[in-house]
This record gives sequence, C-alpha cells and structure tokens, in this order.
Amino acid sequence: MAFNHKGEFLVIEDADKAMDKAGISALIVYGETTLGNPELMYVARTIIPRIGIHVKKLKQQPFLVVSNLDVGHAKRGIVRDVRTLADYKYLELSQKYGRGKALVYLLDRILKQEKIRGKISLHGRNEASQALFLASALTRKGYRVVGSAAPTLLDKLRSTKDSWELERIRNVGRKTIGIVAKVKQMLLSCDVRDGQLFKDGEALTVGIVKETIRLLAAKEELVLPEGVIFAAGPKSADPHYMGMRDDIIKEGEPIVFDIFPQAEDGYWYDFTRTWTIGRPNPTIMSMYEATLRAQEIALEHINEGRRAKEAMEEVCNHFGNLGYLTPRDLQKGNRVAESHGFTHSLGHGLGLTIGEEPYLGLFSTAPLEESSVVTVEPGLYDPVNGGVRVEDVVVVREGQPEIFAEYPRDLVLE
Amino acid sequence: MAFNHKGEFLVIEDADKAMDKAGISALIVYGETTLGNPELMYVARTIIPRIGIHVKKLKQQPFLVVSNLDVGHAKRGIVRDVRTLADYKYLELSQKYGRGKALVYLLDRILKQEKIRGKISLHGRNEASQALFLASALTRKGYRVVGSAAPTLLDKLRSTKDSWELERIRNVGRKTIGIVAKVKQMLLSCDVRDGQLFKDGEALTVGIVKETIRLLAAKEELVLPEGVIFAAGPKSADPHYMGMRDDIIKEGEPIVFDIFPQAEDGYWYDFTRTWTIGRPNPTIMSMYEATLRAQEIALEHINEGRRAKEAMEEVCNHFGNLGYLTPRDLQKGNRVAESHGFTHSLGHGLGLTIGEEPYLGLFSTAPLEESSVVTVEPGLYDPVNGGVRVEDVVVVREGQPEIFAEYPRDLVLE
Repeated sequence: MAFNHKGEFLVIEDADKAMDKAGISALIVYGETTLGNPELMYVARTIIPRIGIHVKKLKQQPFLVVSNLDVGHAKRGIVRDVRTLADYKYLELSQKYGRGKALVYLLDRILKQEKIRGKISLHGRNEASQALFLASALTRKGYRVVGSAAPTLLDKLRSTKDSWELERIRNVGRKTIGIVAKVKQMLLSCDVRDGQLFKDGEALTVGIVKETIRLLAAKEELVLPEGVIFAAGPKSADPHYMGMRDDIIKEGEPIVFDIFPQAEDGYWYDFTRTWTIGRPNPTIMSMYEATLRAQEIALEHINEGRRAKEAMEEVCNHFGNLGYLTPRDLQKGNRVAESHGFTHSLGHGLGLTIGEEPYLGLFSTAPLEESSVVTVEPGLYDPVNGGVRVEDVVVVREGQPEIFAEYPRDLVLE
Repeated sequence: MAFNHKGEFLVIEDADKAMDKAGISALIVYGETTLGNPELMYVARTIIPRIGIHVKKLKQQPFLVVSNLDVGHAKRGIVRDVRTLADYKYLELSQKYGRGKALVYLLDRILKQEKIRGKISLHGRNEASQALFLASALTRKGYRVVGSAAPTLLDKLRSTKDSWELERIRNVGRKTIGIVAKVKQMLLSCDVRDGQLFKDGEALTVGIVKETIRLLAAKEELVLPEGVIFAAGPKSADPHYMGMRDDIIKEGEPIVFDIFPQAEDGYWYDFTRTWTIGRPNPTIMSMYEATLRAQEIALEHINEGRRAKEAMEEVCNHFGNLGYLTPRDLQKGNRVAESHGFTHSLGHGLGLTIGEEPYLGLFSTAPLEESSVVTVEPGLYDPVNGGVRVEDVVVVREGQPEIFAEYPRDLVLE
C-alpha cells in the first residue's frame, strides 16, 4: 500500500488540534488486528495481522507498537516510528500476568516511559468488557482514562478524508460500477419467456446472479463481507431483503441491486441501482421518478457548511408533497411508515466502515465538512409493488458534491 | 440460517452457570451490527445489519432489541424474544440526546424495566472510547457495570462449540479442502521449464494463483477477508509473508499455502499445506518431516483435561531435540529464534474469529475443554531455504482430537 505524506501530515495536525481542544494528552488506538478495526487501520494505514498499539502524544509524532513478526507490515503504513513488543519486554509480561492482563502492564510501561500524566483517550474496536477492564486497571494505577460518546474525536477525524483516502474510495467505486455494468450485460443477454428471465434455457435465479457478482468481485480483488442485495419483485419493498437463491426475475418487476464491496486496504463503496426488465407498472414508474428527483434534490443540498439534516429534510418534503410517507411521519407516531414510503435515512458516511459520520438523518444537526464522504440513497417502498432505490457515493465540496463513480440511472434495462 | 435447539439450550444453561459464578446479574452484548462483532453474532446466531442489544438476565431467557427494520433478520436466529427500538421509544431518545448518547438512555430504560440492580457485564466488539463513555454514564446513573480481562465469561463460553457451531465449521472446512484440491490440480496442470512453472505458455505468477483461489472461494460462497497466503520460495521463511502478485514458482522451492476463509454465517476455517513442484533440497525435506511429526505429536497431546500448553511444549521438545530453535529459546532471550526455527505458537481457537480461546502457547495453563476448536499448525522457517507449515483444524475430544476436513499431507505435488 502506498500513501502520501500530505495525508499523514494533515492527520497529525488535525489530531493535535482536536486533542488540544478536548484536553487530551495521549490518544491511544489499539486492537488485536486491523481487521474489523477501522480506527487502528486509519491511524496505521496498513494491515497489522496481530496486536497493534498506536500512541499519539499531544504535539508529537505518533509511534506504533507491534509484534516483532509484524514490523514489515507496520512499516508499509504511515507511522515512521515502529516499535516492537520486545522493546517493552512483553513476553515477560505475558508469562507473568497471562495474555488477558499483560496489556495493562504493557500500556503502563509505555505510558510511564512517555511520561504521560494527562487525560488518555482509548480507541479502537475492542471487546467492551476487556476495554472496561483495561481502563479501570489503568485508572487504579493513577492514569486518567476518559471515554467519549460518538462521534468521538477520532470519529470526527475519520469523517473527513485526505487525498489518499479519497483515491482509495474512488478506486473501489470504479471497480464497483465495472461489476454493475457486467451484471447488466448478463441480464440483457437473457431471454424473456412467459414474463420471466431465462439464461441458456434455464430460469435465471438470484442465486446464479449472485454467483456472477461474487466472481466479478473476486476478479477485482474486492470482498463482499456483508453479501449483496439483489432483491427482485415485491420483496424488494423490504430495504434489507437480500434476495434468496431461488428467487426468479419477472418482467416489469423492480430489481433493487445494492452492492457494498470492500477492498483489501479496508475502504468500502456502496452503490444501488433499480432495474426492470421491460416496462414496470405506473406505480413503480412514479416511485422511481420521485426517487431520481429526490437524489437530485439531495445533491443540491449537500455541501460544506450546510447542516447534514438539510438534504434529508428536503427529500422528506419532496416525498411528502407527492403523498409518500417519510421518517417524519414515523416521528409523529405513524407506524405505517415503517413498511411504506421512504423508510430510512438519506445516507451515511463511508470510508473504512460502511456506516460512520456524517449521517444524513433528521437529527444530524452538525454542519457537513469538506472532504467528508457520504452515500446519497433515497428510496421508496411499497409492499404490493416492491421497492426502488438509487444510491451513489459523493465527496462533500464547497459547491455541488462530486460523485466518485458515475453510472447511468435508467430504470428499464436496455 | 438454521440452528438446533439443543445448541441454544446449552448456551443458556452454560451462561447461567458462568454468570452465577462471576456474580453477574445481567450479561449485555451489543453492537452496531453483527459484522465484525463475533460476540453479538454468537448470542444472536443471525446477521443483524444494524444495532443489536442482547440482554440475558441471570436464570432467564435472553431477549434481543433490534431496529424495527431488522426484526425479520433477528427472528432467524436463536433468540425467541425479539423486541424493537420502538418498544423503548428510541426515536425520541435519539432526537433528544443525539445518536451518540441515546444508547445510554436506551440501556437505562431497558435496565429499569428489567429491574436489574446487580452487576452488569457489557460485551461485544465496540469502539473502546464509546464503550467507556457508556459504562461511566451508566455508573453515574447508579448501575454496577464491571469489566473483565480476557478471557471473559463470554470468551470462555465461545471457546467450546455446540453441535450447530461444529457443523458450521465442518462446512467451511469441507469447502476449504475442495478449493485446495482444485489449486493443486491447477499447479499440476502447469509445465516446468528451466526450473520454473508455466501455464498456457506464460510464467505462472502468484497473482494468477491467487485469482484462481479467489474465484474458487467466491463459487463456494466463502470470503477471504484477510486475503490468502501463497508464499513461494525463500520468502516463505516469514510466516506472515502473503506472496506478491509477481512472484514466480520455482521447481524444488517450498510453497506455503495458508487459506483462512469465512462463511456468511461468520464461521472461519484455517488450513495450511506446504508443497513443492519436484523434489526439494534435503534441508526442506528434513524440515518438512520434522513438521509432520510435530503435528502428530501435537495431536497426541491435545485432549480434554490436558493443559493447552502441553502440546506446545511437546512440539518444542521435539523440534529442540532435532536442533531447531523454538519460542523457548526466544523466552531465554535468544533473539535468533525470531526468524529461524519454529517461530510461533502451535495453534489458536477458531470459530466466529480466527484467533480466540483456547490458545496453544507456552503460557496457556488452562485445561482444554471438550468441543473446543483449535488449529494445529507447527512450522519451521529458514531464511535461506524458506518455510514449511502444516495446519489443520480439530475439535478437542476426550481421546484423539477429530480433524474437521482431512486432506493429504504430501510435500511433493504429484
């Protein structure tokens, strides 16, 4: 993995500003591995297969403590000062106190050596019970460990992306629309018989389509850790219906194709198109037109300095004016909105996770910042006719947000 | 996902026993999603795309609180009592206190309603800073939240598998050796020219082999979240060298092929074979024979009641007697052992993570329990000649452990 120095510099400068503001003396990000630990991946910018402890003292360059076997991995990242567990005689601690408690003594050694006496902020995706144990053991040793509600200082740092990160996301985006284009070709190569799709004489099932998608992703070196949504027919009315193996694809029915792949470097993409084979009924057609317009409206209201909820509010206004239920109705206690209308938020931040700051929800009062990355995914759902959704990933700018990977939005495949 | 009731029953009975012993009144496992949260996946046994809070009061059936949109997902798991965020008026909390703090008030409502006054153990893979905030906010409200060093009560519960879990792991194992067999066929279909492998006239690169592996995994509906190790030649002496795209495969040099796929249900497998094309040199040959014997010795010393470190000690004795360095030498301060000889532990637990209790290391004093699942992966490394490693996953029994997926251990491919 390559990286740019500008990125690194920005992260450190921003971290100091945030730490200073919060009165934090040391920011510690730790974990058993970078896998499933976006915070550790963010500060290390490289894969660390085993234990990693990233220590950033206020106004100082960070250092990273890793297993002796992982020094090579660690040095591929952005931290210049890579130290090893052996530097802190970890083996001795592990033998004396056992695997579970050794971390307390290791951190104690690190903190003592660094003369850290002020507030310590502990981060990284870790088992809650073990994190609580660590914090209280350090507290008993006289350290001042503080927690923070989401969004934490690090969540906020992660929410704006540097140029290296934007390039990583763009890269996944490019590969994603490549896969989508090939799936479209595959569907178009099918025959329609008795209102149903057939491929090489066999009924085309969602299982076959998903296998194709998995193979295309594998070729592109992308993983699909949460699977893929290929929801055909009325069941697409549930935004989280994934599509089952034996589902068939019928002419005129909406197909919600939502793909969220992750690259080896940890960065995600999230993309949805709704398609029909042949013309859909007028209900789906109007739902789709309303959704397309909703995305346009959303994009007009996403820019630096504007509150994150504004775009969501505008989309709710738009759908509401057309008579569709929205989360505002749910807010008013109208439970019908759970399965009908626009039933979710407009979008969410994306980067090393597929759900992070900033969120484009009704309660998102904070202003959007430049270089934040968000999904823009309005949708409408109708238990009888099915669902429609359009989703792109954009980077927040001063003016109109930039879409990472442009792809046509035609409903009827041709 | 299907499940068996016996599994569910065992989990709850064991949980009560462990909670009672630790004086815990309520075990709470929570998280933003089951993805990357093995603890939440373990208690739910189903994918929950968004927030999930699993509450188990002592001597009572657990319940699970999920988003209204995820009730369908949640009900596919083992928890009968599925409640929604709306049941606790979460929307109101989210609006009033914001996304980050709403969880405190939500848990407060749940705990109050359940009249939980004793010790509360908080679990699940969560951001450390946010977990600390949650715990201290609950403590300020008068609750008694306690942490625990690893292995926690839940780590211990997870370390023995019920029959449903064993079947899931067996399933990934079966698919894994199927992939390995096909990779072997692919290598055997190559030509050897000037001591190097060629496929269809082109030099066979590790990039091509890895693409084949990814496609085979995709067909089997397995993901490779941490990639795959296909380390050919002297570089295989680093047990974490993954193999680079442009690496070529030379006659007689060892290939360490270590594959660790994960199924959609969250369960992993971890499997290694070492192969050579044509005869290796005598050094590699003796290293391999010593490693094969090490695995046999290890299997003889892994059974219920025996301390986890015994097999590791026996393997160190065996390698040491043959003149190879082992972690024991490292322990004695001999740093050479880091890159030479047997440089890692014998194995680790496996299930919803690829590194969990029980660990087969020198400091693992706890006795092995029946139905624990561990990797058994001795290896030897030599910076000049390369590495060799053999790895299988076994379930601990009263007698000889059972290997999930048997596969030949021949070094020379033919």
